[in-house]
Amino acid sequence: MKNISLTARQRKFVHTQRVARLSTVDVNGRPHVIPICFVVDRCSNILTAIDAKPKRVDNMQLKRVRNISRNPYVAVVFDRYEENWDDLCFLLIHGRAELLTDEKMKVAAARLLRDKYAQYITYLDDHAPIIRIVPDEITSWGNLQGTDIF
Amino acid sequence: MKNISLTARQRKFVHTQRVARLSTVDVNGRPHVIPICFVVDRCSNILTAIDAKPKRVDNMQLKRVRNISRNPYVAVVFDRYEENWDDLCFLLIHGRAELLTDEKMKVAAARLLRDKYAQYITYLDDHAPIIRIVPDEITSWGNLQGTDIF
Repeated sequence: MKNISLTARQRKFVHTQRVARLSTVDVNGRPHVIPICFVVDRCSNILTAIDAKPKRVDNMQLKRVRNISRNPYVAVVFDRYEENWDDLCFLLIHGRAELLTDEKMKVAAARLLRDKYAQYITYLDDHAPIIRIVPDEITSWGNLQGTDIF
Repeated sequence: MKNISLTARQRKFVHTQRVARLSTVDVNGRPHVIPICFVVDRCSNILTAIDAKPKRVDNMQLKRVRNISRNPYVAVVFDRYEENWDDLCFLLIHGRAELLTDEKMKVAAARLLRDKYAQYITYLDDHAPIIRIVPDEITSWGNLQGTDIF
Protein backbone atom coordinates (compact mmCIF):
# COMPACT_ATOMS: atom_id res chain seq x y z
CA MET A 1 0.00 0.00 0.00
CA LYS A 2 1.26 3.44 -0.89
CA ASN A 3 1.80 6.16 1.65
CA ILE A 4 -0.74 8.95 1.22
CA SER A 5 0.59 11.39 3.79
CA LEU A 6 3.51 13.69 3.18
CA THR A 7 6.70 12.74 4.98
CA ALA A 8 8.36 15.43 7.09
CA ARG A 9 10.85 16.12 4.31
CA GLN A 10 8.16 16.27 1.64
CA ARG A 11 6.05 18.59 3.77
CA LYS A 12 9.01 20.89 4.33
CA PHE A 13 9.65 21.06 0.60
CA VAL A 14 6.01 21.72 -0.26
CA HIS A 15 5.80 24.47 2.37
CA THR A 16 8.63 26.36 0.64
CA GLN A 17 6.72 26.44 -2.64
CA ARG A 18 4.58 29.45 -3.59
CA VAL A 19 3.10 27.92 -6.71
CA ALA A 20 2.21 24.42 -7.92
CA ARG A 21 0.66 23.15 -11.14
CA LEU A 22 -2.70 21.41 -11.20
CA SER A 23 -3.70 19.06 -13.99
CA THR A 24 -7.29 18.04 -14.66
CA VAL A 25 -8.88 16.04 -17.47
CA ASP A 26 -11.96 16.88 -19.55
CA VAL A 27 -14.70 14.48 -20.66
CA ASN A 28 -12.82 13.80 -23.89
CA GLY A 29 -9.72 12.65 -22.03
CA ARG A 30 -7.79 15.81 -22.76
CA PRO A 31 -5.67 17.38 -20.05
CA HIS A 32 -5.63 20.92 -18.74
CA VAL A 33 -2.85 22.32 -16.56
CA ILE A 34 -2.52 25.64 -14.75
CA PRO A 35 -0.43 27.22 -12.01
CA ILE A 36 -2.15 27.41 -8.62
CA CYS A 37 -1.60 29.01 -5.26
CA PHE A 38 -2.26 26.49 -2.52
CA VAL A 39 -1.86 25.39 1.06
CA VAL A 40 -1.52 21.88 2.45
CA ASP A 41 -3.55 21.08 5.54
CA ARG A 42 -2.59 18.74 8.40
CA CYS A 43 -4.06 15.75 6.58
CA SER A 44 -1.89 16.38 3.48
CA ASN A 45 -4.90 17.64 1.53
CA ILE A 46 -4.20 20.43 -0.94
CA LEU A 47 -6.48 23.45 -0.75
CA THR A 48 -6.68 25.94 -3.59
CA ALA A 49 -9.10 28.78 -4.16
CA ILE A 50 -10.90 29.98 -7.21
CA ASP A 51 -9.95 33.51 -6.33
CA ALA A 52 -10.69 36.96 -7.58
CA LYS A 53 -7.81 37.33 -9.98
CA PRO A 54 -9.46 38.45 -13.21
CA LYS A 55 -10.91 35.56 -15.15
CA ARG A 56 -12.56 35.52 -18.52
CA VAL A 57 -15.50 33.36 -17.45
CA ASP A 58 -17.59 32.81 -14.37
CA ASN A 59 -15.91 30.77 -11.66
CA MET A 60 -18.16 27.76 -12.00
CA GLN A 61 -17.55 27.66 -15.71
CA LEU A 62 -13.79 27.58 -15.35
CA LYS A 63 -12.24 24.66 -17.15
CA ARG A 64 -10.71 23.20 -13.98
CA VAL A 65 -14.07 23.34 -12.20
CA ARG A 66 -15.97 21.80 -15.10
CA ASN A 67 -13.34 19.08 -15.40
CA ILE A 68 -13.33 18.02 -11.76
CA SER A 69 -17.13 17.97 -11.62
CA ARG A 70 -17.03 15.18 -14.20
CA ASN A 71 -13.66 13.57 -13.48
CA PRO A 72 -12.32 14.12 -9.96
CA TYR A 73 -8.90 12.63 -10.67
CA VAL A 74 -6.20 15.28 -10.73
CA ALA A 75 -2.44 15.54 -10.46
CA VAL A 76 -0.45 18.32 -8.79
CA VAL A 77 3.27 18.82 -9.19
CA PHE A 78 5.56 20.85 -6.94
CA ASP A 79 9.04 21.30 -8.29
CA ARG A 80 12.27 23.22 -8.01
CA TYR A 81 14.37 24.12 -11.04
CA GLU A 82 18.05 24.89 -10.54
CA GLU A 83 20.80 25.28 -13.10
CA ASN A 84 22.76 22.69 -11.12
CA TRP A 85 20.73 19.70 -12.19
CA ASP A 86 21.88 17.72 -9.16
CA ASP A 87 19.44 19.94 -7.26
CA LEU A 88 16.39 19.35 -9.46
CA CYS A 89 13.43 17.78 -7.77
CA PHE A 90 9.72 17.36 -7.88
CA LEU A 91 6.94 15.97 -5.79
CA LEU A 92 3.85 14.66 -7.54
CA ILE A 93 0.49 14.10 -5.91
CA HIS A 94 -2.26 12.13 -7.58
CA GLY A 95 -5.60 12.57 -5.93
CA ARG A 96 -9.28 13.37 -6.14
CA ALA A 97 -10.57 16.91 -6.19
CA GLU A 98 -13.84 18.27 -4.90
CA LEU A 99 -15.36 21.67 -4.32
CA LEU A 100 -15.83 22.29 -0.61
CA THR A 101 -19.47 22.79 0.29
CA ASP A 102 -19.23 23.01 4.09
CA GLU A 103 -19.08 26.70 5.00
CA LYS A 104 -16.89 26.17 8.08
CA MET A 105 -14.37 24.23 6.06
CA LYS A 106 -14.36 26.95 3.41
CA VAL A 107 -13.73 29.64 6.00
CA ALA A 108 -10.92 27.59 7.57
CA ALA A 109 -9.36 26.98 4.17
CA ALA A 110 -9.56 30.66 3.27
CA ARG A 111 -7.85 31.51 6.54
CA LEU A 112 -4.96 29.13 5.77
CA LEU A 113 -4.63 30.67 2.33
CA ARG A 114 -4.57 34.21 3.75
CA ASP A 115 -1.95 33.15 6.30
CA LYS A 116 0.29 31.94 3.50
CA TYR A 117 -0.44 34.63 0.90
CA ALA A 118 -0.91 38.18 2.18
CA GLN A 119 -2.20 38.96 -1.32
CA TYR A 120 -5.35 37.00 -0.50
CA ILE A 121 -6.34 39.60 2.08
CA THR A 122 -7.28 41.64 -0.97
CA TYR A 123 -8.02 38.96 -3.50
CA LEU A 124 -9.83 36.16 -1.70
CA ASP A 125 -13.57 36.48 -1.43
CA ASP A 126 -14.98 34.88 1.74
CA HIS A 127 -17.36 32.85 -0.38
CA ALA A 128 -14.89 31.95 -3.10
CA PRO A 129 -15.10 28.33 -4.17
CA ILE A 130 -12.34 26.22 -2.65
CA ILE A 131 -11.05 23.03 -4.23
CA ARG A 132 -9.77 20.31 -1.92
CA ILE A 133 -7.52 17.59 -3.30
CA VAL A 134 -7.27 14.40 -1.26
CA PRO A 135 -4.11 12.49 -2.17
CA ASP A 136 -4.23 8.89 -3.38
CA GLU A 137 -0.53 8.66 -4.17
CA ILE A 138 2.55 10.76 -3.43
CA THR A 139 5.79 10.28 -5.28
CA SER A 140 8.94 12.33 -5.38
CA TRP A 141 12.07 12.52 -7.48
CA GLY A 142 15.44 14.15 -7.02
CA ASN A 143 16.92 16.22 -4.25
CA LEU A 144 13.98 17.61 -2.26
CA GLN A 145 16.33 18.97 0.38
CA GLY A 146 18.37 21.09 -2.01
CA THR A 147 21.57 22.80 -1.06
CA ASP A 148 20.62 26.23 0.10
CA ILE A 149 17.08 26.43 1.34
CA PHE A 150 17.34 24.15 4.38
CA MET B 1 -10.30 29.41 -35.92
CA LYS B 2 -7.74 29.59 -33.17
CA ASN B 3 -4.21 30.70 -33.71
CA ILE B 4 -1.78 27.84 -33.33
CA SER B 5 1.46 29.73 -33.68
CA LEU B 6 3.02 31.71 -30.87
CA THR B 7 2.77 35.47 -31.25
CA ALA B 8 6.01 37.44 -30.96
CA ARG B 9 5.17 38.34 -27.35
CA GLN B 10 4.27 34.77 -26.43
CA ARG B 11 7.45 33.48 -28.05
CA LYS B 12 9.56 35.99 -26.14
CA PHE B 13 7.96 34.91 -22.87
CA VAL B 14 8.40 31.20 -23.57
CA HIS B 15 12.04 31.73 -24.52
CA THR B 16 12.74 33.19 -21.07
CA GLN B 17 11.45 30.07 -19.36
CA ARG B 18 13.83 27.30 -18.29
CA VAL B 19 11.15 24.84 -17.20
CA ALA B 20 7.56 24.08 -18.19
CA ARG B 21 5.06 21.51 -16.94
CA LEU B 22 3.73 18.76 -19.18
CA SER B 23 0.45 17.03 -18.50
CA THR B 24 -0.53 13.71 -20.05
CA VAL B 25 -3.46 11.37 -19.47
CA ASP B 26 -3.45 7.63 -18.89
CA VAL B 27 -5.89 5.07 -20.30
CA ASN B 28 -8.10 5.44 -17.24
CA GLY B 29 -8.48 9.18 -17.79
CA ARG B 30 -6.16 10.09 -14.96
CA PRO B 31 -3.68 12.91 -15.41
CA HIS B 32 0.07 12.97 -14.89
CA VAL B 33 2.12 16.16 -14.71
CA ILE B 34 5.86 16.73 -14.53
CA PRO B 35 8.36 19.53 -15.01
CA ILE B 36 10.20 19.44 -18.34
CA CYS B 37 13.11 21.15 -20.00
CA PHE B 38 12.15 22.15 -23.52
CA VAL B 39 12.79 24.22 -26.60
CA VAL B 40 10.28 25.66 -29.05
CA ASP B 41 11.12 25.34 -32.72
CA ARG B 42 10.30 27.80 -35.53
CA CYS B 43 6.90 26.16 -36.07
CA SER B 44 5.90 26.65 -32.41
CA ASN B 45 6.33 22.93 -31.71
CA ILE B 46 7.64 22.05 -28.28
CA LEU B 47 10.56 19.64 -28.15
CA THR B 48 11.51 17.85 -24.96
CA ALA B 49 13.93 15.02 -24.38
CA ILE B 50 13.74 11.90 -22.32
CA ASP B 51 17.21 12.60 -21.03
CA ALA B 52 19.77 10.87 -18.92
CA LYS B 53 18.81 12.31 -15.56
CA PRO B 54 18.46 9.29 -13.32
CA LYS B 55 15.10 7.57 -13.75
CA ARG B 56 13.64 4.65 -11.88
CA VAL B 57 12.43 2.85 -14.99
CA ASP B 58 13.48 2.42 -18.58
CA ASN B 59 12.78 5.40 -20.81
CA MET B 60 10.13 3.71 -22.87
CA GLN B 61 8.29 2.66 -19.74
CA LEU B 62 8.10 6.18 -18.35
CA LYS B 63 4.58 7.21 -17.51
CA ARG B 64 4.59 10.18 -19.90
CA VAL B 65 5.79 7.95 -22.76
CA ARG B 66 3.22 5.25 -22.03
CA ASN B 67 0.50 7.86 -21.79
CA ILE B 68 1.21 9.64 -25.07
CA SER B 69 1.51 6.33 -26.92
CA ARG B 70 -2.16 5.72 -26.08
CA ASN B 71 -3.51 9.27 -25.82
CA PRO B 72 -1.51 11.89 -27.70
CA TYR B 73 -3.39 14.85 -26.24
CA VAL B 74 -1.25 16.83 -23.81
CA ALA B 75 -1.15 20.23 -22.19
CA VAL B 76 1.92 22.29 -21.38
CA VAL B 77 1.94 25.34 -19.15
CA PHE B 78 4.61 28.03 -18.97
CA ASP B 79 4.16 30.47 -16.14
CA ARG B 80 5.75 33.15 -14.04
CA TYR B 81 5.04 33.57 -10.35
CA GLU B 82 5.70 36.94 -8.73
CA GLU B 83 4.68 38.20 -5.32
CA ASN B 84 3.16 41.20 -7.08
CA TRP B 85 0.16 39.40 -8.49
CA ASP B 86 -0.30 42.04 -11.18
CA ASP B 87 2.69 40.34 -12.79
CA LEU B 88 1.39 36.78 -12.72
CA CYS B 89 0.96 35.13 -16.08
CA PHE B 90 0.79 31.85 -17.86
CA LEU B 91 0.71 30.51 -21.35
CA LEU B 92 -1.05 27.21 -21.98
CA ILE B 93 -0.56 25.02 -25.02
CA HIS B 94 -2.88 22.16 -25.82
CA GLY B 95 -1.50 19.85 -28.46
CA ARG B 96 -0.64 16.37 -29.62
CA ALA B 97 2.56 14.66 -28.62
CA GLU B 98 4.58 12.11 -30.53
CA LEU B 99 7.97 10.51 -30.20
CA LEU B 100 10.24 11.61 -33.04
CA THR B 101 11.37 8.68 -35.17
CA ASP B 102 13.27 10.50 -37.91
CA GLU B 103 16.95 10.47 -36.96
CA LYS B 104 17.73 13.83 -38.59
CA MET B 105 14.91 15.48 -36.72
CA LYS B 106 16.11 13.93 -33.47
CA VAL B 107 19.65 15.20 -34.03
CA ALA B 108 18.32 18.69 -34.86
CA ALA B 109 16.13 18.69 -31.76
CA ALA B 110 19.02 17.56 -29.56
CA ARG B 111 21.12 20.39 -30.95
CA LEU B 112 18.47 22.96 -30.07
CA LEU B 113 18.23 21.52 -26.57
CA ARG B 114 22.02 21.66 -26.11
CA ASP B 115 22.07 25.25 -27.36
CA LYS B 116 19.57 26.21 -24.68
CA TYR B 117 20.81 24.00 -21.84
CA ALA B 118 24.58 23.60 -21.49
CA GLN B 119 23.78 20.80 -19.03
CA TYR B 120 22.62 18.68 -21.94
CA ILE B 121 26.18 18.52 -23.29
CA THR B 122 26.67 16.06 -20.46
CA TYR B 123 23.19 14.71 -19.98
CA LEU B 124 21.65 14.33 -23.41
CA ASP B 125 22.30 11.06 -25.18
CA ASP B 126 22.45 11.44 -28.99
CA HIS B 127 19.83 8.72 -29.31
CA ALA B 128 17.61 9.85 -26.47
CA PRO B 129 13.92 9.76 -27.29
CA ILE B 130 12.56 13.21 -28.14
CA ILE B 131 8.91 14.13 -27.71
CA ARG B 132 7.48 16.70 -30.10
CA ILE B 133 4.27 18.51 -29.19
CA VAL B 134 2.36 20.11 -32.05
CA PRO B 135 0.03 22.83 -30.73
CA ASP B 136 -3.71 22.75 -31.41
CA GLU B 137 -4.52 25.73 -29.21
CA ILE B 138 -2.54 28.45 -27.46
CA THR B 139 -4.02 30.61 -24.75
CA SER B 140 -2.47 33.04 -22.34
CA TRP B 141 -3.48 34.87 -19.19
CA GLY B 142 -2.04 37.81 -17.31
CA ASN B 143 0.95 39.98 -17.91
CA LEU B 144 3.29 38.03 -20.19
CA GLN B 145 5.53 41.04 -20.60
CA GLY B 146 6.19 41.49 -16.90
CA THR B 147 7.92 44.53 -15.47
CA ASP B 148 11.56 43.65 -15.25
CA ILE B 149 12.54 40.98 -17.72
CA PHE B 150 11.87 42.82 -20.99
